[in-house]
Amino acid sequence: MSDDERKIVLDKSEFSDWYNNVVEVAGLSEKRYPVKGMNVWTPYGWKIMQFIDSIIRRECDATGHEEVNFPLLIPKTEFQKEKDHIKGFDAEVYWVTHGGLNELDVPLLLRPTSETAMYPIFSLWVRSHNDLPLKTYQIVNTFRYETKMTRSFIRVREIHFFEAHTCHDSFEDAERQIREDCAIMGRVGKDLCLPYLLIKRPEWDKFAGAVYTIGVDTLMPSMKTLQLGSIHQYRENFSRPYDIKYEGQDAQFHYCHQTTYGMSERLVGAIVGIHGDDKGVILPPNIAPFQFVIIPILAKDRTEMVLEEAKKLLNEMREMGYRVKLDDRDQRPGSKHYDWEIKGVPIRIEIGPRDIEKGTLVFARRDLSTKSFIKRSDLKVEADRALNQVQDELLRRAQEIVEKGVRDVDSLDDGIKLLGSGWDGIIRTHWCGEMDCAGEMEKGLDRTFLGFPMNDAGSGEEEKSPGNCMFCGRPTETVVMLSKSY
Amino acid sequence: MSDDERKIVLDKSEFSDWYNNVVEVAGLSEKRYPVKGMNVWTPYGWKIMQFIDSIIRRECDATGHEEVNFPLLIPKTEFQKEKDHIKGFDAEVYWVTHGGLNELDVPLLLRPTSETAMYPIFSLWVRSHNDLPLKTYQIVNTFRYETKMTRSFIRVREIHFFEAHTCHDSFEDAERQIREDCAIMGRVGKDLCLPYLLIKRPEWDKFAGAVYTIGVDTLMPSMKTLQLGSIHQYRENFSRPYDIKYEGQDAQFHYCHQTTYGMSERLVGAIVGIHGDDKGVILPPNIAPFQFVIIPILAKDRTEMVLEEAKKLLNEMREMGYRVKLDDRDQRPGSKHYDWEIKGVPIRIEIGPRDIEKGTLVFARRDLSTKSFIKRSDLKVEADRALNQVQDELLRRAQEIVEKGVRDVDSLDDGIKLLGSGWDGIIRTHWCGEMDCAGEMEKGLDRTFLGFPMNDAGSGEEEKSPGNCMFCGRPTETVVMLSKSY
Repeated sequence: MSDDERKIVLDKSEFSDWYNNVVEVAGLSEKRYPVKGMNVWTPYGWKIMQFIDSIIRRECDATGHEEVNFPLLIPKTEFQKEKDHIKGFDAEVYWVTHGGLNELDVPLLLRPTSETAMYPIFSLWVRSHNDLPLKTYQIVNTFRYETKMTRSFIRVREIHFFEAHTCHDSFEDAERQIREDCAIMGRVGKDLCLPYLLIKRPEWDKFAGAVYTIGVDTLMPSMKTLQLGSIHQYRENFSRPYDIKYEGQDAQFHYCHQTTYGMSERLVGAIVGIHGDDKGVILPPNIAPFQFVIIPILAKDRTEMVLEEAKKLLNEMREMGYRVKLDDRDQRPGSKHYDWEIKGVPIRIEIGPRDIEKGTLVFARRDLSTKSFIKRSDLKVEADRALNQVQDELLRRAQEIVEKGVRDVDSLDDGIKLLGSGWDGIIRTHWCGEMDCAGEMEKGLDRTFLGFPMNDAGSGEEEKSPGNCMFCGRPTETVVMLSKSY
Repeated sequence: MSDDERKIVLDKSEFSDWYNNVVEVAGLSEKRYPVKGMNVWTPYGWKIMQFIDSIIRRECDATGHEEVNFPLLIPKTEFQKEKDHIKGFDAEVYWVTHGGLNELDVPLLLRPTSETAMYPIFSLWVRSHNDLPLKTYQIVNTFRYETKMTRSFIRVREIHFFEAHTCHDSFEDAERQIREDCAIMGRVGKDLCLPYLLIKRPEWDKFAGAVYTIGVDTLMPSMKTLQLGSIHQYRENFSRPYDIKYEGQDAQFHYCHQTTYGMSERLVGAIVGIHGDDKGVILPPNIAPFQFVIIPILAKDRTEMVLEEAKKLLNEMREMGYRVKLDDRDQRPGSKHYDWEIKGVPIRIEIGPRDIEKGTLVFARRDLSTKSFIKRSDLKVEADRALNQVQDELLRRAQEIVEKGVRDVDSLDDGIKLLGSGWDGIIRTHWCGEMDCAGEMEKGLDRTFLGFPMNDAGSGEEEKSPGNCMFCGRPTETVVMLSKSY
């Protein structure tokens, strides 16, 4: 890191600038690539993404999903088979029109998502009820021609993307899949210390081609929601145009029921945005490229001895399975602290001549800025404990943000007053179901309809409670949420 | 697998048909995607590719390369900076001309390789001699608008690709990098049981923009060579147009020296082609999705007991770290053998009531079709031994093919006679250096110039020996090789 970069002020109260700066100074992404919204994954950022991918793979493998990898390019003719889908993506896809010097007979598009690449093949793979459920996933890059302002990890034009696609013999089995997806999201969220809400989108905001869409929304410190992922029920909406049929036990052919589940590099954006502070990024131990950094405190005449002990410690911890970096650069410890704080390493270990004499180590926690002495002989126990504590603390804090970030409001006036008081976040209220009322609510609050919060990860049911429509006052049990969002 | 597929005859003496069939029946690739040459990675094929990727990552990490991930799309303006490079790729790239409904101001191309994506950024990353060497790599898909006939893994339009890109402060350090690349290739080749030759390409066949290119060629059973990878010395050919400069210890700015090293999914093609036989694929244990398949031999009244023991065995072996599949489908053992032979699982384990009584297991080797009884109590030792034996045998056989596949020939007449006798393979001979002679040699033999074989992985020197030009008879020390190739 050069001295120039050090001068950048990280002030999280100015969230938007803070975010852009921290991504840069922590070396998470290189934004100077000559196509707007297409960023370079740096070694550090890419390692974080790969650890997240491993968590997703672990979950998919454990639930019997098989990993595949479909072509990037989709013929226009295949893309056009599902009418709503193409309408939803028409203005957002990149078109390949030429191969070499020849114009292509059929233009190809870069996948914005892979339904239309996969489903012609699923129609070949699915023959009988024995082939069902078909549970597949892939981790690939997708492309959207974004016209809005881009932002690293949050709104980009080349998107690192996970997508699971499943086929089922009944609506019920597809519903069971969606509950499994919600449970997977629960485990991923915990590993990444990311709290989130499952919110069923309103009709006008569901995925192009879906029967319904569940958004996975988290709340950023800017008090805007960020959609981390989504889960879709397709019923037979795609299997009919793509002719995905199976022979049932009744010897008749039936169309499959389908679901998808997607998450993207926005998970990295959420981790950066939610956990970081004025000193930089704070990484959850589960996905930190380095969980520990060892800083040797060198003293005259004893430099070699300290370095040797630091190296011993490094090797020992690596053998224990931790991801550890030894920073033996010829720099002041303070300058090293600064660098690793920015990069968000959860635990800094200091080891100096006196520590070696006393058989101790200093553990400094990135999340709380606290230091403690631990016994060298308790290394394994203390290291595990420290990582768990950071993990728990990051999740606790983030949950606090979300809890404080949701407020119940009864009437539009109360909502406007609340927002006028300086508070911002997610407004929970009631809605009668009339489009006009929804429009008035959105306009009055200057917030968008997120949709219908769901009771919990498992049940798949929307929250219901007696109340009155925020705009017209009619009695209704339908709970809805509105917020600003990315 | 359906009964239809079983009727496909696998006859390796008809190599081309055999190859296409075996890829299909072993479930390695799905070729019915509606864009020619863009195939779907099936779960089984993708697992093999991912194990190969892990081996490459292991090697790159151990040699201090850092993994990055650059955007797929390259602006035409960046692509055109190195003149030879664009000439080499002009007819082969896919062009993105539209985003949504808008024509793009600057057309974007899909990377055929990433020099022109990476180097504008390298010019920002490299500032001082302290930043060097810069050693990066990425594993991505690349795109070539192939007009020739496509073939799974061997000639495709979307190519799973590994590319290492390095920057150095001197030609000597870049040369050292190339020797390191050759050593990496040695370890990868050994893990995949793939013998190969390092052959410096002739001037007219080097990579667009390179000072020289070393081809990594293996010999397929069709007696055609297959280029598995290539290593390039760029000197300052790219650093000048892309302005990649560093401040040296002399306080002056210098252009970097650069190298690249690439390998592709052709590694899978070579494994399939070289090791397989009339029963199907044979996978090297290091990259086999399943190293062992357990087939329970069920007997009346004792089915449950056998299944239970088989499951115990499965869990035990998994805990030992092996990749094992238990095939407990309700089918005859013979039919199961057949399926797993096609898929190339190195070791089949049979366990039946008598084995359980006697405390034995049957190990059947896929490569030799031999069976042996092993003691259940020696499981770990025997399993390790069996995997090592398969690994050694596959490499030995493949080396034999290459050794028998290279013949020294002195004159064009002798060469024509040799080929006329029915022998085919790689011809090693001498060349005076005149283009006309090279042309006559290629025409006379109906083979293409591979280039100059290199002494060994370490030295980086071309083979020299006294001889006479194959065509004109002039004395020369330059050894060359010619063959048919993919």
